[in-house]
Order: sequence, then C-alpha cells, then structure tokens
Amino acid sequence: MKNQFLLFTLLITACFSQVTAQEAVNEDLNTIIRKHGLDQSKALEIAGWMTDVYGPRLTGSPMLDKATSWAEKELKDWGMKNVHLESWGPFGRGWEMSNFEMHANAPGYWPVIAYPKAWSPSVKGTGEVVYMDASTEEDLAKFKGKLKGKFILLDTIREVKEIWEPNAKRHDAESLLGLANAPVPTPRPRRNYNLNARSFRTALWKMMEDEQPLAILDRSYKGDHGTVFVSGARTAEGRSRDKDKAVVPQFTVAVEHYNRILRNLQRGVEVKLTVDLAATYTNPDEMEHNIIAEIPGTDLKDEVVMFGAHFDSWHTATGATDNGAGSTVMMEAARILLETIKESGVKPRRTLRLALWTGEEQGLLGSRGYAKDHFAEFAPGTYTPQSLKPEQEKISAYYNLDNGTGKVRGIYLQGNEAVAPIFRAWLQPFKDLDANTVSLGNTGGTDHLTFDAVGIPGFQFIQEPMAYFARTHHSNMDNFDHLSGDDLAQAATIIASFVMHTAMRDEMLPRKAHELAKPTASGGK
Amino acid sequence: MKNQFLLFTLLITACFSQVTAQEAVNEDLNTIIRKHGLDQSKALEIAGWMTDVYGPRLTGSPMLDKATSWAEKELKDWGMKNVHLESWGPFGRGWEMSNFEMHANAPGYWPVIAYPKAWSPSVKGTGEVVYMDASTEEDLAKFKGKLKGKFILLDTIREVKEIWEPNAKRHDAESLLGLANAPVPTPRPRRNYNLNARSFRTALWKMMEDEQPLAILDRSYKGDHGTVFVSGARTAEGRSRDKDKAVVPQFTVAVEHYNRILRNLQRGVEVKLTVDLAATYTNPDEMEHNIIAEIPGTDLKDEVVMFGAHFDSWHTATGATDNGAGSTVMMEAARILLETIKESGVKPRRTLRLALWTGEEQGLLGSRGYAKDHFAEFAPGTYTPQSLKPEQEKISAYYNLDNGTGKVRGIYLQGNEAVAPIFRAWLQPFKDLDANTVSLGNTGGTDHLTFDAVGIPGFQFIQEPMAYFARTHHSNMDNFDHLSGDDLAQAATIIASFVMHTAMRDEMLPRKAHELAKPTASGGK
Repeated sequence: MKNQFLLFTLLITACFSQVTAQEAVNEDLNTIIRKHGLDQSKALEIAGWMTDVYGPRLTGSPMLDKATSWAEKELKDWGMKNVHLESWGPFGRGWEMSNFEMHANAPGYWPVIAYPKAWSPSVKGTGEVVYMDASTEEDLAKFKGKLKGKFILLDTIREVKEIWEPNAKRHDAESLLGLANAPVPTPRPRRNYNLNARSFRTALWKMMEDEQPLAILDRSYKGDHGTVFVSGARTAEGRSRDKDKAVVPQFTVAVEHYNRILRNLQRGVEVKLTVDLAATYTNPDEMEHNIIAEIPGTDLKDEVVMFGAHFDSWHTATGATDNGAGSTVMMEAARILLETIKESGVKPRRTLRLALWTGEEQGLLGSRGYAKDHFAEFAPGTYTPQSLKPEQEKISAYYNLDNGTGKVRGIYLQGNEAVAPIFRAWLQPFKDLDANTVSLGNTGGTDHLTFDAVGIPGFQFIQEPMAYFARTHHSNMDNFDHLSGDDLAQAATIIASFVMHTAMRDEMLPRKAHELAKPTASGGK
Repeated sequence: MKNQFLLFTLLITACFSQVTAQEAVNEDLNTIIRKHGLDQSKALEIAGWMTDVYGPRLTGSPMLDKATSWAEKELKDWGMKNVHLESWGPFGRGWEMSNFEMHANAPGYWPVIAYPKAWSPSVKGTGEVVYMDASTEEDLAKFKGKLKGKFILLDTIREVKEIWEPNAKRHDAESLLGLANAPVPTPRPRRNYNLNARSFRTALWKMMEDEQPLAILDRSYKGDHGTVFVSGARTAEGRSRDKDKAVVPQFTVAVEHYNRILRNLQRGVEVKLTVDLAATYTNPDEMEHNIIAEIPGTDLKDEVVMFGAHFDSWHTATGATDNGAGSTVMMEAARILLETIKESGVKPRRTLRLALWTGEEQGLLGSRGYAKDHFAEFAPGTYTPQSLKPEQEKISAYYNLDNGTGKVRGIYLQGNEAVAPIFRAWLQPFKDLDANTVSLGNTGGTDHLTFDAVGIPGFQFIQEPMAYFARTHHSNMDNFDHLSGDDLAQAATIIASFVMHTAMRDEMLPRKAHELAKPTASGGK
C-alpha cells in the first residue's frame, strides 16, 4: 500500500512538473495582455461601429463592403501589417433592401411584424390570404391555378409559451462538468432525409414558382414577443442567390401575427395584406472577400498562428451576437496583442494572422475558399480535400469564436487529446476569469471546421450561452444591446494570450492524424 | 385550563357553524356551473373574436364600435335580456390609423420597430434626428428654431438586460401568504409631484408645439426583444383627444432601435428617418358607450348583482390580456349562468347585470359615467360624490376582472372585513382550483374603484400574475397568443358562482361605511 501511494504521488508530481516544464506560461505577458484587454478594453467601441453603423453584414451586400472597408482601415490604423482582402467565389449575387413594410387591411388595419427572407425580390401589392393546408402532391393539385396574386401561408399555428424559464443562462458546474467529461467525439452519422418529404417540398416550391403568388409567409420557427428568426429565401431547385434565379417573394412573420392571420382564415374572416418590398440584387461579379491582417513573426515567421471569426451576418438586425461578437473579440485580440508587443518589446516568434471570414452563413464559404487557395486541393464541386498544399504544414493552430457574446469558460479540443495539457496550462492563469474547462468534445457549425477538415488544429472556445439561441441567433433582435462588454473583453483577453502563447512555443501544436480524402464534417448552419 | 380549552372549542365550533349556517353554498348549482365553465368552456372562442377580429378596441375608435355590435349580438343570441348601450361622455374624439411605417435611411436602410402613440395626427416625411439633451428651461433655449421638420429624441439610452429571471409567474405560497396577511388598507398619500419637473415638462411640450418637429420619439419605458409598451400622445396643456387640439406626432420606438439611433448620433454618425402615419380622428359626437346586459331576477329583482370588466384597450395589439381577458371572463360567466339557469331551473333572486366598460384606459371614464347616471351626484368636473342616488342602495356587489389572463387565486376585500366569511365560504368549493386566498388588501387601477368610491361593495379577484406586467399590459404583444384558455375558464366558473351566490342570499352584501364627499381613490392607469 505504502509503495503504491508513493508511486502515485510521484506520478502526480511528475505529471504537474511535466506540464509546468514543457508548457511555459509567460505571466509577464499575460499581465500586460490583461491590462489592455480588461482594463482598457475597446471591445464595445469596436462592436458599436460594426453593428450600429456597419450592420447588418449580409454576404454580397453593399453594407458588408462598407463594413469591410471600415475594418481594414481600423486594422491598418492600429498597426496591423499586410492588411488585405482575399477573394473567394463565385458566391452568387448580393442582396439589399431599401424599403420594407407589411400591413393588414382586413378585418382592421394593423402593421404586421415581418421580415423579408434574404434574396426575396421586390414586390408590391395587396391581396387575399390563402392557407395551403397541403402535405401530399395530391393536396397541391387542389390549389392549382388559385394562387396568383395571393399571400400564401405555409405553416400551421404554433402555440406560444410564456417565458416560464429564463431565456439567458450562464454555465454552471453541472453544464461545465458535462463538457469536461465529454468523450472523444465520433463522426456524426449523416441525417437520413425523408425522400418523400423532400420530393413533396420540391413539388410545392415548383408549384409556387409556376403560380406566382404575391408572397409566401411562414412564421418564425421559434421566438415570440416580437422576436423573429429569419434567414434566406428558398427555391425549388438551386439557390436564391444564383444569378438570374427567379425567386418567389418570401417573408417570415412574428408568430403572434401569423397565428392571428391564420386563425381569422379558419374562422372564415377575410384577411387582406399589403406588402411593399424594394430590394436590389448587387455584386454582379459574384466574388466575395475575406479580410486578412498580420503581425509579423520573428525567428519562426514562416509559421503562422491564425485566429478569426466570421464577419458576415443575416439581415434583419445588425449581426451583433452572430457574429459581431466573434469578429469584435478577434479584432480586439489583435489590438491587445499590438499594444502588448509595443509595451513589452516581446515580439511573436511565429506570424499572427487574423482572418475575418464572409459567406459563413451560407456554408463556411469564405474560410473554405481560403482553404482552397492555401491548404488543399478539393475534389471538384466539393470541400473534400484530395491533397494538401505545403502551406497546410505551416499553420500551428486556428482559433475561432462564433457562439455569441458570452465570455470564455474553456475550450473544445475537437478530439485533439494531445493539446489538452497545453491548453490546461494556458487556461490556468485565467482561472479567476472562470475559464478553466477543457472539453474533448466538438462544437460545429462554423469556420474552425474548415481547418479541422484539412488537418490543421482548429478550435472554438466554450462560451457562456447567454440568450444566444433563445433570442438573438439569426433573429431581428441581434442588436448591439444584446452584447455584454465585460464578456467580450474577457474573451479577447484570453484569446490574445492563447494566440501569443501558440506563437512563442518551440513546437507547433500537435495535430490529429488526418486521413486525406475523408469527407469533411458538414458545415453551414 | 380545561375550561378555557372547552370555551375555545365551543367558540371554534360556533364560528364554523355560523359560517356554514349563515352562508349557504349551493353545491348542486356549482356542479352545473363547473360543467359549463370548465368542461364546455367557450372562453377562448369568445376571446378569439374579441381580439383577432375585433381588436384593438381603443375608446372612440370605429373598431370598438364593431366590437360593441358583436358583443351585443352575442349576448342577445345567448339569451341575455335588456341588452343595450348606455352612453357617457363627452369623451373627446376617437382615433384610428390606416397606415403606419417608420424606416431608417442612414447610415443604412432598416425598418424601425415603432408605434404611433394614440391620437398622433397623420404625418409623412423624411428628416434628420436630433437628440434633445435638455433638463432645464435654459437647455431648451439652445434648441429654439432648430427643430422644425426633424425627428426629436427625448429619452436617454436605456440599458437592456437579458431575461435572467422568468417573465411569467404564478403565485406561490409565499406570495399568497403576503396577500392573506395584508392589513386593512389605509388610503395612499397623494404623490408629491415635483413642481419644477412639471413646469419643465410643460415648457418642453409647449416648445414642441411651437417648433413643429416632424415627430417626437421616445423609447419603450420597459420591454425589449421586440416588445414595445405604448399608450397615448401628450400635449403641453389639455388632452390629445380634445376636439381640435393640435397634437405633435409622437412615436414609441423599440428600445434596441431607439438606442441604436441615439448611439449613432453620439458617435457623430448621421441618422435619417422616414415616417408615414395615416390616422383619422373619428367620433365627432364625442359620446361613448358601455354595454349593459341582464339576467332578470325573481323575488328580489329590484336588487342587482353587477359584474363587469373594461372592454376598451390600447391600440398596438388586440387588447388580449388588457382587457379582452376580463371581458371574456365576464361574458363567459354570463353564458355559464344562462346555461346553468336553463339546466337547473333555478332562477336568480336578484337581477344579474353584466357591464362592459369603455374609456377605462383614460381614467375609468365609462364606469364613472355610469356611476354618475345611476349612483351619485358628483361635484362639478370631478368624480367626488356629493350625494347618493336611490339606485346606489340596490346594488349588492360589483365584481371586476382586469389583471390579465391568470386564473383566480382568491379575492381582494378592499378593506371590507364583513364580507370575509361570506367569500371564504364561497371560495371553499373551489379549493381544488387553487382559489382560496382572501386578502383584506386593495387592488387599484380599474373599475371596481368607481363602485368603491360611491359606497357599493366593489371587488377584484386575485389573479396569477403570468406575463402581464412583464410583457403584455399596454404592449404591442397583447395578442391572443398570450391568453391561457384554462385560466380564463377557471376564472369565469368561479365568478359565475360568486355572482349567483350573491344573487341568492337573503341579504345584500355588507357594506363598508361610506363617508360622502370624501375624495375618491385616484383611478386611471
């Protein structure tokens, strides 16, 4: 027993020493990083411009171009080097609206809370409302020839629940423990789509395109009390952003208003609506751009530490938490690093490269375009890498943030066990900021997947959930007011430290084995 | 000790017997009432017409007239007698809108979430936005001559909090115990208005009326995530509903949008807004109407049990919880009583009289008009009773409901201790429906105060709070979807039983002492 105990003690000691010995933490740098990141944060100032002034930032829209110019100028003014745009595409056409209103004219007048789906064309008119209660192709036939010039309702009534539980949450011990104990992730099985349902949906949308109703309305699939979740218009085939594609005007209505309209139809009460959407298709060359900016390295300057977030957003608010928050934190991390380098005189060994991606909302398109240019050859028409380019070997890590405004509570390893002791050591100094959970688990849906797919260590941080999925993610309420400045400052501080520590260590970060030509994890949201 | 114990036991027994003996509960009638009220409820059907079809019901508006006609017809169809309108007034002019939209045109385009305040006149135009940072009359002078054709912001930035606590609540033991233990209420002291602030506000509004800005914007004083609280327009002197009064167009903007506009001004970023409000003043005779309907009594038919709720609402939703809920419950209680009388053959001894009031939102005007016609002479230009009319003696009680969609958890006695044992006996059979708390306390702000002020026992029920004050009361989200059918059915059932028991007992309900010419409790909301 005693010998065993001794052995155990030795092992523990060895373990800690190993971490301490191998994984240096530069406390002096961290002190300066904290000063600029926590005490002199500019996060809310950056976020304010990015959202209130340069929001929303729909990919392909003129406002995204303005936001891009603003960000480039900011980064140059701060002292970032090699600030430039890298194009990717073709994306398809852009879209912006210059007027939108919807009104109900019968039984009484009321302004309808609704939003156009992105890429809906201009439309103006008044019409009756028809509820298409159809779930088979036979059902569809009944409506043939009857939809022209009408407003079409496609959704059933959704019951609204009051807010009996808080919308906004922070992690607690239980939720963090779940992440800490997450097993090595296994690839998710592909969804088994219901082909019958898919064929029905295609038939439905073909019919819509033939019949030319004035507008198709659905209700926000979640949200209530004035919060409406909206994304892009759909088509029977192809994508609504495809050049010259004819798109049926589509709108998402606040659930309370959608339900009111549908209930009145079911009562036999006539409902009339008026819509006026003025929208233009933009960006005829169909090419989009990521923003790239660097802090040059020194002795290992050919090796690169990347950090970034997607800069684009949906269109009904200002893209504050999705993903003004992530873009703000990454720009602020760059600013903190510039200030820290200036103050400390310590220059990064590897080059630090900030990337603000676009086209993320349509399927990680900007980061995938970047990967195509820099890291891998892909099978034609896919994002399945077939061979790796030399640059792939030079990227030590990519750090991403895209889960709202909540502060960092730790990091997801994406199944890369070998980085666990390194990240634990780097998180240790931020224990007082509540960031100390390391999860073997994956998190999906955003641009770190692009890196993971080509064998570059790509990570997202564990964030406080806040009201992200309940209220702001892809909603008309994704506005500046739902950002938390303290949380953004904390995240920028920790990420700046992670980036600098990744740049300063002797080795690049350990990689997972990468099996070439293996299908990538599916991206998009 | 033993004798004392015996005495105590006797007293307790006497007490219970007294209640049981004096205060009959008709269980057979209650069984039938429950069948019609709980198992065969029509509450949601009534509420649906009252809100989705005939909402909103702003006093003076044509839609209120339509709603009134619908309610009259329903009540007649069900078999209510003496269904008629009783006019009160003059109220002032009515108002309705036939188009409203607001857009932001710079720095980018976005549709603004906003609502006109009721009685705002038509206005159409595009203009710059000015923040009036003024708190003294000297501050005002700086803006003189600079406001014409502009949009004026009057409010500061309001910080938005996420929903960390539930919005909707039901009572728990603790909150009910607080009500059960409430002391006999004492009159509230009159608010000590800050006369300086008042004089500043008057000067501010006079300046607005002189300068003729395009519109005055404030932010919703509470609410967020798309919920906007809006009521009526104000003036420097007089009321915006006064005939021929010139009103400056006024709008309430969702806090996130208001803050965005103001933050951009503070950043030096130009903001341009466009507004188009088409509104008409209606109701040139300025007279309004309460809806009255009766179920005739038998041997005591000259005595009356009244029950009612206000039927009018504000204008940005459909007046579902304020006070479609109360009006629905009272109409449904009438329907339950008609069915119960038909099925049981038991006719009420006293006459049952339903009243649906209007003008409540402007200061209990409809019920006060009714009191003026039936119950008291008031001092000129006031609602201070100076002498009582004979009818006042004939009203046994008035039951009111106006605190949203929540079910009944008990009743407020309004300081009338003598009714406590009676109400306790009547609530006892509804213990399984969670309605058993009797509070000596007051509840204010609505039409039972009118009765209390003229010495007629007037009561409101204790209701579940639900999301009433957090989300729906005077907001754009006061829609049908925020009603709870089960709660409305429970309330109608219990109130039907209370009304019937009040009609059947030998005596009228005991009254509090009434001191004539005592100023009435202040009403309005």
